[in-house]
Amino acid sequence: MAIESEQQSQAEDFSAVELALATRNHGFPLESLRYDLTPIGLHYLLIHFDIPLVDASTWRLEIGGEVGRPLSLSLEELMNRPRTSVACTLECAGNGRARLSPRPLSQPWLEEAIGNAEWTGTPLASLLEEAEVGSDAVEVLFTGLDRGFQGDVEHLYERSLPLDEALRPEMLLAYEINGQPLPPQHGFPLRLIVPGWYGMSHVKWLDRITLITEPFEGYQQAKQYRTKLTEDDPGEPVTRIQPRSLLVPPGIPDFPERHRFLSPGPCLLEGRAWSGWAPITRVEVSVDGGESWQDAELGESTGDYGWRRWTYDWDAAPGEHELCSRATDGDGNTQPLRAAWNTGGYVNNAVQRVPVTVQP
Amino acid sequence: MAIESEQQSQAEDFSAVELALATRNHGFPLESLRYDLTPIGLHYLLIHFDIPLVDASTWRLEIGGEVGRPLSLSLEELMNRPRTSVACTLECAGNGRARLSPRPLSQPWLEEAIGNAEWTGTPLASLLEEAEVGSDAVEVLFTGLDRGFQGDVEHLYERSLPLDEALRPEMLLAYEINGQPLPPQHGFPLRLIVPGWYGMSHVKWLDRITLITEPFEGYQQAKQYRTKLTEDDPGEPVTRIQPRSLLVPPGIPDFPERHRFLSPGPCLLEGRAWSGWAPITRVEVSVDGGESWQDAELGESTGDYGWRRWTYDWDAAPGEHELCSRATDGDGNTQPLRAAWNTGGYVNNAVQRVPVTVQP
Repeated sequence: MAIESEQQSQAEDFSAVELALATRNHGFPLESLRYDLTPIGLHYLLIHFDIPLVDASTWRLEIGGEVGRPLSLSLEELMNRPRTSVACTLECAGNGRARLSPRPLSQPWLEEAIGNAEWTGTPLASLLEEAEVGSDAVEVLFTGLDRGFQGDVEHLYERSLPLDEALRPEMLLAYEINGQPLPPQHGFPLRLIVPGWYGMSHVKWLDRITLITEPFEGYQQAKQYRTKLTEDDPGEPVTRIQPRSLLVPPGIPDFPERHRFLSPGPCLLEGRAWSGWAPITRVEVSVDGGESWQDAELGESTGDYGWRRWTYDWDAAPGEHELCSRATDGDGNTQPLRAAWNTGGYVNNAVQRVPVTVQP
Repeated sequence: MAIESEQQSQAEDFSAVELALATRNHGFPLESLRYDLTPIGLHYLLIHFDIPLVDASTWRLEIGGEVGRPLSLSLEELMNRPRTSVACTLECAGNGRARLSPRPLSQPWLEEAIGNAEWTGTPLASLLEEAEVGSDAVEVLFTGLDRGFQGDVEHLYERSLPLDEALRPEMLLAYEINGQPLPPQHGFPLRLIVPGWYGMSHVKWLDRITLITEPFEGYQQAKQYRTKLTEDDPGEPVTRIQPRSLLVPPGIPDFPERHRFLSPGPCLLEGRAWSGWAPITRVEVSVDGGESWQDAELGESTGDYGWRRWTYDWDAAPGEHELCSRATDGDGNTQPLRAAWNTGGYVNNAVQRVPVTVQP
């Protein structure tokens, strides 16, 4: 019944390195798709190095480089600036990596590297305006306080954005999540929010913002987060979130396998869908592993950059079923049954598959 | 240099079932040992089934069974009762399981199934008194709202305590963590706190409390959470937390292996130690994989049931080192280098081992 694809196989033999990452980084329990906004502690976390310990009383954000007027701001000064909020779905670019074959060695996400929170802070654009960006600036570099080695390169975690992206009005320097001060794991005291982009661009524990005159070639920009077919392939940079839909696994699970069991009869399937390219315009549901599809009913979106609820009335017949959902956005992007492979295991937005047993 | 023991080997070849559990359940990032109280979202989570969705406006706690006066209380009524707080270290009974060989099939924790929060609620004892516990009652059964299958048995998660344990004055029905309402993942709207005991006893999403006249023989009591040498062995029940100490891995990590690198010279090692049996009286540190030990300096405890800070001034010489710490409590219980094996992989409190490279 299920369409078996190489990439969707249940890979075995995860290594100790992958296991250590999986016990350290946090996945989103899929039943939490029921909440419009993800409660603190249920949002996914991918932290390359260690969570820095920051003393907010001495911390300052430095804005410099190709600017006419370098700035240095305390947290209080940032909080006294114009304040705005945005509901924003974040997803790790490596979500779905553990379903790929061969499986790239990194955090082995299945589908749970997601979250949808309300972030509050001050718009980036007005700060850049105040700093008087020079005419030679082409990119904005965001540098975090988290330091480590990756690919044998010691570096602070940092990522750049093209200047026009950085000047988008919805770009936020956030100091609150869901109305509370950022907890350490989400980037206290300040993080970048790049609505619509994968998580790697939302730099946490911000230390400085630098206007640069050449494209940034640092490790996390030039080596990681590119869809490369071989290690030598420069690949394409990972940017906006591909459309995805996930459903709340219905019924009750077993432990440890987490297979699902439910009773026959009416069953409301529900989930969320999102895309960083355009609003979600369609969600389809399959109860036969992708052989046939029916339209789900779309609910309210949580905002221009937040996920959108959907529901589907299923009349569950006894037997084995494989539930799937598939999102399409306003640009016509649709989730594939099988995503293209790349060396980093990025942007795998293949449809979720939830096997369930309906017991008579 | 390191003492190699069978149980401390880095097991390979984790299964897809273990990986799915590890991406779903949350581990505590060890650098968060720096905080006296664990921020929400960094505390460990082990959730057998799904997180229930509870409507607090209709939820009630039922207290019944062998009582003279059954009670039914709303959350508001519980919050209007006497209010108290306790800092309490929680640890999953399966912490360390992934270091055992052969490795029992369950959540594959390394060392990160810990947390130390301040829980606020109302004492259990006065509620039991008000319910007029009958003279035939021998145990108190705590039933959660989380349902699933385990060992082919469909059940609500429930665990009992002997009546004398349940009547301890520090036993708490908690509705807050760190001064905030319980988030869904920690048992909203109400959970049990059993200071000193492993996590399985702190039943979340409480639905009812039942005074029973025979020892409870449910699945999570009679089949799980016992230190059995074979599946047929009844074993001993898991109760209080064995002493353990963990240290903040010093220096900076690499990704993905998370090996540690630091510079030569003075390095303050710091960590936390706890025991459910008696206060921590000693912590020792080894920088040579357990061949030699020196006393650490003990700091303040976070309370009778909260972890205690310790520090050790290490003069890091260039080369490879394996850092360990070892806690001893006032009852004379000490962490072993190698813990006894059991079928469930419970109470493995063997000393942590942190390999580090000091670079000249």
